[in-house]
Amino acid sequence: MATARILAAAAARAFSSTAASGAGAGGVSMVQGASRGIGLEFVRQLLRRSKQGRVVATCRSPDSAVELQKLKEEHAQRLTVLPLDVTDENTIEAAAASIGETHGSLNVLINATGILSIPNVIHPETTLSKVQKSSLLLAYEVNAVGPILVIKHMWPFLKAGGRSETERGFSLVANMSARVGSIGDNGLGGWHSYRASKTALNQLTKTVSVELGKKGNIACILLHPGTVDTDLSRPFQKNVPKDKLFTREFSVQKLLSIIDNVKKSDNGKFFAWDGQEIPW
Amino acid sequence: MATARILAAAAARAFSSTAASGAGAGGVSMVQGASRGIGLEFVRQLLRRSKQGRVVATCRSPDSAVELQKLKEEHAQRLTVLPLDVTDENTIEAAAASIGETHGSLNVLINATGILSIPNVIHPETTLSKVQKSSLLLAYEVNAVGPILVIKHMWPFLKAGGRSETERGFSLVANMSARVGSIGDNGLGGWHSYRASKTALNQLTKTVSVELGKKGNIACILLHPGTVDTDLSRPFQKNVPKDKLFTREFSVQKLLSIIDNVKKSDNGKFFAWDGQEIPW
Repeated sequence: MATARILAAAAARAFSSTAASGAGAGGVSMVQGASRGIGLEFVRQLLRRSKQGRVVATCRSPDSAVELQKLKEEHAQRLTVLPLDVTDENTIEAAAASIGETHGSLNVLINATGILSIPNVIHPETTLSKVQKSSLLLAYEVNAVGPILVIKHMWPFLKAGGRSETERGFSLVANMSARVGSIGDNGLGGWHSYRASKTALNQLTKTVSVELGKKGNIACILLHPGTVDTDLSRPFQKNVPKDKLFTREFSVQKLLSIIDNVKKSDNGKFFAWDGQEIPW
Repeated sequence: MATARILAAAAARAFSSTAASGAGAGGVSMVQGASRGIGLEFVRQLLRRSKQGRVVATCRSPDSAVELQKLKEEHAQRLTVLPLDVTDENTIEAAAASIGETHGSLNVLINATGILSIPNVIHPETTLSKVQKSSLLLAYEVNAVGPILVIKHMWPFLKAGGRSETERGFSLVANMSARVGSIGDNGLGGWHSYRASKTALNQLTKTVSVELGKKGNIACILLHPGTVDTDLSRPFQKNVPKDKLFTREFSVQKLLSIIDNVKKSDNGKFFAWDGQEIPW
């Protein structure tokens, strides 16, 4: 709590100074989980489509994030890369402190981390008899708890960014969920750990949206990117029809279109890549 | 996996012998989390309403479960009390081994454990800034992971109990959920850890219901008991209208009525105490 207050004060100070220098033009977008896959593609497209917008990209190990470092070379003035591991709250707090000093506000926060399978650690379950407690807890920690802790610590900057720096008069949090997290849509079963973690993320995001929508000028949404050709989905692509397997470019274009057009009244909603709402 | 196969074999053997002796008449109901509150009341009512039905009651510390021990004195032949801590899978396996030897089948499994608040450990959050990772993980482990691990290890006996020992031709799993676990019904926010854990339980139960409904003759349902006057709800009763605060007797009567009348086609559904379905 003390940390939150200090950060809020730092945010207020930093916001005044950057706003005065006009550095907020185009806004500041943060992408959490940006070393590869959908997160990396968000960073790439956010940088390309604007000459002013700044991007904060976080990942566990910036030094080994080769693609992100290439983008950093191209866009040194507009891209900040910070270490952040969603399973280590200290790194979230450290990233928040750094953002408070250098940016002071966030207009968009995209939580893009996600865990589905790691050889010998976690694998989507095909039957209850294969469900392991360790997998349930790990998926929950990374996919549900992590994004919520990131929002908790970035909240002061989202409040600051909820003013009218950009065309939109509110800040936006977009959490990457997945259709398999829908309970109503669950006709196949399986994938216990991943499903439950995304369902919990949906509930946590909805819960947070109620408070942030009232107290700050912030909207929170959930996004299903479709089945996208990334490292995460690669082991599970064989039954996906070709026209249903999206490139990262296509999926992120669609998701950014949703992010651009979202209204404050969409706070707490769950959208697929094509803009259709998904049942809980 | 090896353990599961051994248990399944033990279950098949035990089932044949108990079925032959007619010991299955009235069926075997297991109540997990039976030392107090709703779980204890389930045990009490299940024993009272039948002279033949047998009950397996589990709790973390049978020796200190005074009320359960009193019931054991009254119903020594029909009540089995076993230690089971949902956070320790070894105790679940040990309970399963014991049930395999003494009963061999289960007709009903009621998961009644739940954690909402423990002084200085976990407390329902009123704001995002109070959300702690430790609370999120603890609530998930007890309220979502625990019941699923119990079903995983009791599955062989539920399969055996899905035969027509009782009037109903299938076994039933009833997991205690809560209306605050509904995402669609979440208009107030707050209670992040508890909400998310119950939402995840809903998704895990739905996921498991798909497989168990097909492979075994088993239906799984979720129940919302209402706000019941128990240790769990006591710190949070002050804003509950008197006519909405139920006695344990009333709530469990209502829930047993649902359990008695459930159809196989209700597999995977979420019911409130009054039989109304709750949205996800």
